[in-house]
Amino acid sequence: MNKIDPKLLKAIDYEYPGKRIEIVIETDEFTCLCPWSGLPDFARLRISYIPAKVCVELKSLKFYLYSYRNVGIVHESVVNRILSDLVKNIKPKEMNIDATFNIRGGLKTTVRAEYKKR
Amino acid sequence: MNKIDPKLLKAIDYEYPGKRIEIVIETDEFTCLCPWSGLPDFARLRISYIPAKVCVELKSLKFYLYSYRNVGIVHESVVNRILSDLVKNIKPKEMNIDATFNIRGGLKTTVRAEYKKR
Amino acid sequence: MNKIDPKLLKAIDYEYPGKRIEIVIETDEFTCLCPWSGLPDFARLRISYIPAKVCVELKSLKFYLYSYRNVGIVHESVVNRILSDLVKNIKPKEMNIDATFNIRGGLKTTVRAEYKKR
Amino acid sequence: MNKIDPKLLKAIDYEYPGKRIEIVIETDEFTCLCPWSGLPDFARLRISYIPAKVCVELKSLKFYLYSYRNVGIVHESVVNRILSDLVKNIKPKEMNIDATFNIRGGLKTTVRAEYKKR
Amino acid sequence: MNKIDPKLLKAIDYEYPGKRIEIVIETDEFTCLCPWSGLPDFARLRISYIPAKVCVELKSLKFYLYSYRNVGIVHESVVNRILSDLVKNIKPKEMNIDATFNIRGGLKTTVRAEYKKR
Amino acid sequence: MNKIDPKLLKAIDYEYPGKRIEIVIETDEFTCLCPWSGLPDFARLRISYIPAKVCVELKSLKFYLYSYRNVGIVHESVVNRILSDLVKNIKPKEMNIDATFNIRGGLKTTVRAEYKKR
Amino acid sequence: MNKIDPKLLKAIDYEYPGKRIEIVIETDEFTCLCPWSGLPDFARLRISYIPAKVCVELKSLKFYLYSYRNVGIVHESVVNRILSDLVKNIKPKEMNIDATFNIRGGLKTTVRAEYKKR
Amino acid sequence: MNKIDPKLLKAIDYEYPGKRIEIVIETDEFTCLCPWSGLPDFARLRISYIPAKVCVELKSLKFYLYSYRNVGIVHESVVNRILSDLVKNIKPKEMNIDATFNIRGGLKTTVRAEYKKR
Amino acid sequence: MNKIDPKLLKAIDYEYPGKRIEIVIETDEFTCLCPWSGLPDFARLRISYIPAKVCVELKSLKFYLYSYRNVGIVHESVVNRILSDLVKNIKPKEMNIDATFNIRGGLKTTVRAEYKKR
Amino acid sequence: MNKIDPKLLKAIDYEYPGKRIEIVIETDEFTCLCPWSGLPDFARLRISYIPAKVCVELKSLKFYLYSYRNVGIVHESVVNRILSDLVKNIKPKEMNIDATFNIRGGLKTTVRAEYKKR
Repeated sequence: MNKIDPKLLKAIDYEYPGKRIEIVIETDEFTCLCPWSGLPDFARLRISYIPAKVCVELKSLKFYLYSYRNVGIVHESVVNRILSDLVKNIKPKEMNIDATFNIRGGLKTTVRAEYKKR
Repeated sequence: MNKIDPKLLKAIDYEYPGKRIEIVIETDEFTCLCPWSGLPDFARLRISYIPAKVCVELKSLKFYLYSYRNVGIVHESVVNRILSDLVKNIKPKEMNIDATFNIRGGLKTTVRAEYKKR
Repeated sequence: MNKIDPKLLKAIDYEYPGKRIEIVIETDEFTCLCPWSGLPDFARLRISYIPAKVCVELKSLKFYLYSYRNVGIVHESVVNRILSDLVKNIKPKEMNIDATFNIRGGLKTTVRAEYKKR
Repeated sequence: MNKIDPKLLKAIDYEYPGKRIEIVIETDEFTCLCPWSGLPDFARLRISYIPAKVCVELKSLKFYLYSYRNVGIVHESVVNRILSDLVKNIKPKEMNIDATFNIRGGLKTTVRAEYKKR
Repeated sequence: MNKIDPKLLKAIDYEYPGKRIEIVIETDEFTCLCPWSGLPDFARLRISYIPAKVCVELKSLKFYLYSYRNVGIVHESVVNRILSDLVKNIKPKEMNIDATFNIRGGLKTTVRAEYKKR
Repeated sequence: MNKIDPKLLKAIDYEYPGKRIEIVIETDEFTCLCPWSGLPDFARLRISYIPAKVCVELKSLKFYLYSYRNVGIVHESVVNRILSDLVKNIKPKEMNIDATFNIRGGLKTTVRAEYKKR
Repeated sequence: MNKIDPKLLKAIDYEYPGKRIEIVIETDEFTCLCPWSGLPDFARLRISYIPAKVCVELKSLKFYLYSYRNVGIVHESVVNRILSDLVKNIKPKEMNIDATFNIRGGLKTTVRAEYKKR
Repeated sequence: MNKIDPKLLKAIDYEYPGKRIEIVIETDEFTCLCPWSGLPDFARLRISYIPAKVCVELKSLKFYLYSYRNVGIVHESVVNRILSDLVKNIKPKEMNIDATFNIRGGLKTTVRAEYKKR
Repeated sequence: MNKIDPKLLKAIDYEYPGKRIEIVIETDEFTCLCPWSGLPDFARLRISYIPAKVCVELKSLKFYLYSYRNVGIVHESVVNRILSDLVKNIKPKEMNIDATFNIRGGLKTTVRAEYKKR
Repeated sequence: MNKIDPKLLKAIDYEYPGKRIEIVIETDEFTCLCPWSGLPDFARLRISYIPAKVCVELKSLKFYLYSYRNVGIVHESVVNRILSDLVKNIKPKEMNIDATFNIRGGLKTTVRAEYKKR
């Protein structure tokens, strides 16, 4: 319950593999811990991707995101780690992640990362 | 009453066939069933297209969309199926469909597909 | 009182003819009739253009738009007809019209047309 | 699947029976059929109540509301029927229901009903 | 087509006559003419009432409101007339009407009237 | 052109004198001058009243409000003066005025006054 | 780390004990677990109170609210428990708590409780 | 520059002393320091009052509020102190102050105080 | 007081002349007169520019804009004139002006002009 | 306490140096003084950048921004100075700063600057 668990991620076949679609998944419920203070961080998360052969199964994504709940991790790593775990598991053509973390010390921080298959 | 019925779709002549226009149709009232749980899904749907010779008749589109009401179908297929049925029936120059499904398990999902006549 | 009357449109000289400007006119008050049911339709209308030598006089535009009040006409024709009447009368360099019609049967429809002088 | 089913409603004990609380449940996902046209109606529903000894179990409420999906019923009866089924099942001190139905023919309709234990 | 026609109003039985409910009907599509200039006026209209034995049938209300389309009438009379026609036809326990007319000369005007059965 | 001119105000008969209505008039276009600096002030104005025998004619109200344009006057006096001029001219049963002046030095100021016939 | 810890709550003297004030504290960051599924719940929380002799120290409140993070607890108990812990610790004249939990199964739930010193 | 300076407050005569008005002054620009950390706090401030014989001069209020800029003071004291300084200086019939402080540690705090002349 | 006065405009040195910045100035307080009716017009104005060697001094811009207060001028000329006066006085690399005039006769009009140094 | 202190800025290693991300930091809490009047200015600040090897440490950025609190500085210099201090300290691939200053004299001013590593 205290580590990020990419094995929770499940893929389902994309039934129209030749057809290009974009899938956008948004949640207000991402939470992890600050690695220095141990205090909770909260973020709005947005994942968008162009599937190749498979899509991420939504329930499994939910459980994967919940696995960050008691993990200490910095903002930049949250975004890079989710991107890298999802790319490995569903091998999309393109993927973008952005996370907007709640105000701390008067500052609101958004981190964006992207992947493009070569 | 339990299957998607593309025969409900009717076309009407576009009276200015040489003139390029864009038509955007939006509805908050799309609903179908989850193929696994049998529970209802709800979506905001947006259809935009450049007509060639015909437009979709609005009332017929309404009835066609209603035919999903008691059908179990995943998000990606909703969008691909509507796109394919409309392209077959009204042969537009271009068409985009996007559907934003209501929050399930804290996640809101949007699926977008597009067609361009070659 | 029951026909579209383009003779109501008046032009006024554009006093800075060499200077490129864009003019955007918006109204919430466009109304006409459905040609099939005879029932009123309502739309938000947006007209934008780059004038060449003349601008449309605003009061005259208001009267011209009022002339649709008791006329039965489909959405696509509303936009194409206004565009064609305005282009004929003020000969702009470019013009765009879009009209967003109020919800009917759960569907909201927007139609967009554009003109570019060759 | 074609009748309103109050037996789906389950109660759970309210664990602080002496303490007055107000519970408000809102959903954008209520749908039923128009009894005359057979076409779908959609509504935002808001249920608020002061529990006495039991609360409505949320999952069971969801299933109860889903049982209206293929039932033809007028707006006023939707609200009165939900109120009466809930009052019978959870015997609250007070309860209010209001439902705002989507625009039909340019008209948006809200119906409100309330119950107060004597 | 040029006079207010209260005969268009139809009542339907309220099926729970002992139960007090409130019904609110809102529309963005009210339009009439200014009695002095003959130019169109537009208003957002809100009708709320407590039915006694009957409710107003929604389609008939729509047609009744359309009968103002080509009638010259001042703002205060619009509200008083609708109130009086509806009270006569559906004999509610209470009724409130308010209409917010679109900006004219920089001024936006709202008129409210109410009826309470003695 | 440099003085407040209550003679511009005209009354029109209220045609339903026995019926209590409320009339609310709002404008974003009130402007006068600061009596100390001579610089323009701008306000959103809201006038609401219960007419007795007459209503204020809207066009005349517009001209009356324009007469403040080049007059130096403090916020509190704007509201008291408009209230007093209107009460004198249309003798309402009740009247409320509020004006929200644009930000000056980081402060936004609203002034409200009311009149009730004894 | 898995139990609600009211000992985290600290009080600070209210320096104007004779003067009645209202204090409202709002947060978007409340989270606990569903006692049945073990899945996270999220809520917007609003605490308002009239202090008597002490106020709750804000940092200590933050830590107290964090102690719910890995605790399984139903919505009604969240609100009743926070109310009871705060009343015990800061003995206010009045206190209200309301919590709006994120959508689950299409339903958004708000729970409100209040305390008044007799 | 490091102390609250009520001598900055100036009153101006209220020219309609018999007439009851309400004056509301709002600003987004209140800032002071946290007495413990020395870090800046920011608040939206709202002052409303019923003047008796004098009003607060707006420019002087701006300077008075600026005098908090480098002063360490807790939220509750900000509101009580401003109320007390203003009541002493302009002797209103009634006055309300509320301040909503920016989010710190995920918590947004509002403090309200009021004065009524006996 | 009745003529546009470009001599009011003052420039201040831009202290980082090699560094490209964009400056955007917005106001809700532009007002002039309609040249035909003499009635006031109101607009939201937006000026954006890339300074070369000097910036416009803000206070002087405010006074310059106030000089339109009692001048009769059409919408298109307002935008062209402000652009031309500012370009002459501060010689920017690029400048855009847009003005959105308040609704008249149900129509809201925006005019945009731009300048690019060759 | 009265000078801008870039030594407060601390960098932390970016742990995914080969991966391109964008970081956006926003705050409503920037304040400095007007160099002419000595009065406070307030701005919403937005910093976005593509890190190369290091990121700015958020707490240190907060302290750096606080160091402007009692410094007199014009809008254009605020943006250029923050950009130059951050570029020197964290050597990003790209950086954009924009600041929207609160309304003064009816004018709201935004300044934008950008840096791109050659």
